Amino acid sequence: MPRFRLTLEYDGTDFLGWQAQAPGARTVQQTLESAAADLFGAPVAVAGAGRTDAGVHAEGQVASFAVVTGLEPRAIRKALNHRLPDDLAVVACEAVADGFDPRRDARAKRYRYVLWNGPERSPLRRRRAYAVPGRLDVGAMARAARAFEGEHDFAALQSTGSTVRTTVRTVLRCEVAGAPGGEIAIEVEGTGFLRHMVRSLAGTLVEVGQGRRPEGSIPALLASRDRARAGPTAPAEGLTLVAVRYPDRGLGAEDDSVANPGV
Amino acid sequence: MPRFRLTLEYDGTDFLGWQAQAPGARTVQQTLESAAADLFGAPVAVAGAGRTDAGVHAEGQVASFAVVTGLEPRAIRKALNHRLPDDLAVVACEAVADGFDPRRDARAKRYRYVLWNGPERSPLRRRRAYAVPGRLDVGAMARAARAFEGEHDFAALQSTGSTVRTTVRTVLRCEVAGAPGGEIAIEVEGTGFLRHMVRSLAGTLVEVGQGRRPEGSIPALLASRDRARAGPTAPAEGLTLVAVRYPDRGLGAEDDSVANPGV
Repeated sequence: MPRFRLTLEYDGTDFLGWQAQAPGARTVQQTLESAAADLFGAPVAVAGAGRTDAGVHAEGQVASFAVVTGLEPRAIRKALNHRLPDDLAVVACEAVADGFDPRRDARAKRYRYVLWNGPERSPLRRRRAYAVPGRLDVGAMARAARAFEGEHDFAALQSTGSTVRTTVRTVLRCEVAGAPGGEIAIEVEGTGFLRHMVRSLAGTLVEVGQGRRPEGSIPALLASRDRARAGPTAPAEGLTLVAVRYPDRGLGAEDDSVANPGV
Repeated sequence: MPRFRLTLEYDGTDFLGWQAQAPGARTVQQTLESAAADLFGAPVAVAGAGRTDAGVHAEGQVASFAVVTGLEPRAIRKALNHRLPDDLAVVACEAVADGFDPRRDARAKRYRYVLWNGPERSPLRRRRAYAVPGRLDVGAMARAARAFEGEHDFAALQSTGSTVRTTVRTVLRCEVAGAPGGEIAIEVEGTGFLRHMVRSLAGTLVEVGQGRRPEGSIPALLASRDRARAGPTAPAEGLTLVAVRYPDRGLGAEDDSVANPGV
């Protein structure tokens, strides 16, 4: 059966995440499955590269489905977008091998967490950034961030109650860009992430910026494996899944068009 | 009576503009006057530097009111923001001379019109940009834009039905930045603007980018003074009032804090 890979962009504000426990909840997966069922005239199961939580955005989430169709990828993209609400769009669609699994085959994911450090809340950024007024030492945050890079046990950044086989993950890159008084972006790329790991990392770096946590304290925090010693889980609205990387090409998915030109 | 100058940021999506004809409409002015009346316990008349249309955003709209109060500007800013909805905020407040008039005293205004040239609509940009898919010659747009600079009769870019004393205005700067396939920003600064002038200018430059209008045709268009010869009025969501300049300082308003650090 022909299989397709979709690259998705969504404003997570009004979604209850990629997938919800409760039936009938407005999720990205369910919204996409409804549009696909309408297009193909039969139920279509859509698999994602990973679950994003309620309120989390995506510029390059990846999903896949198999369906018997004579439609070309470009036509599928156009037809799905015609059926999707304005806070969700397929930005690229391409044919892939039948065995493709967006979760298992993913080699790396990139996230961005955005802080707004202006003196007041910013109405134009309120859906995309976490407002943190007051003095922030961005240089200290940037230096502390590098200590997350590499293979580490990230149990200290995992949301409580999680049960995974191992809490060891590899962070390929963790960088902080921006200036005090404006937007500050924390860019994190890794081969895998624990639940709430990027948001806990962001909450911890904010405390470093505020001078409430020494910039050299990250290695000891990780070694402790103690969630209670990390910073709070920063709110969902600041987080965006930027891209998912697969072995067959670079970040982002493309068909005849250019997806994620800014990535 | 003490007078204050406010710098305002708002997401115009859910406002019927700065000021509406119909009573009871949700406007920026009425929302601000309600918050001020609640804070000061008496009606407060708020004047703006200019009217923004329904759906148009602001990073640096300027407003002013006079009120008998012992509150410092910083306290007024905090107290108003506490009373304002999340799509409107006072980003700066300062005391000014009693004769200050935000409209009459304005020396220049700066607007930004944002286009999204990706192959598909962008959910994360849908409130802030006008989606124009397809090939756009950004270089031709940038060259054409410079022809709007200077003192000209802009009657060709004025919305039909307007009645103003003169349609001569001075554009200090008109520049296009960005790349095909991504975000393209048209930045326009001028000493005054006609109704819908920036949006008509944007609609005209889009036609240049699409190759439907020669890049050298702007002088003849302006000379014609004929609205029917210009491009369509581009939609409100792409437009942002970035800043208003006054003789006493640079763009944007500041109190003890930094407003518009990105400007």
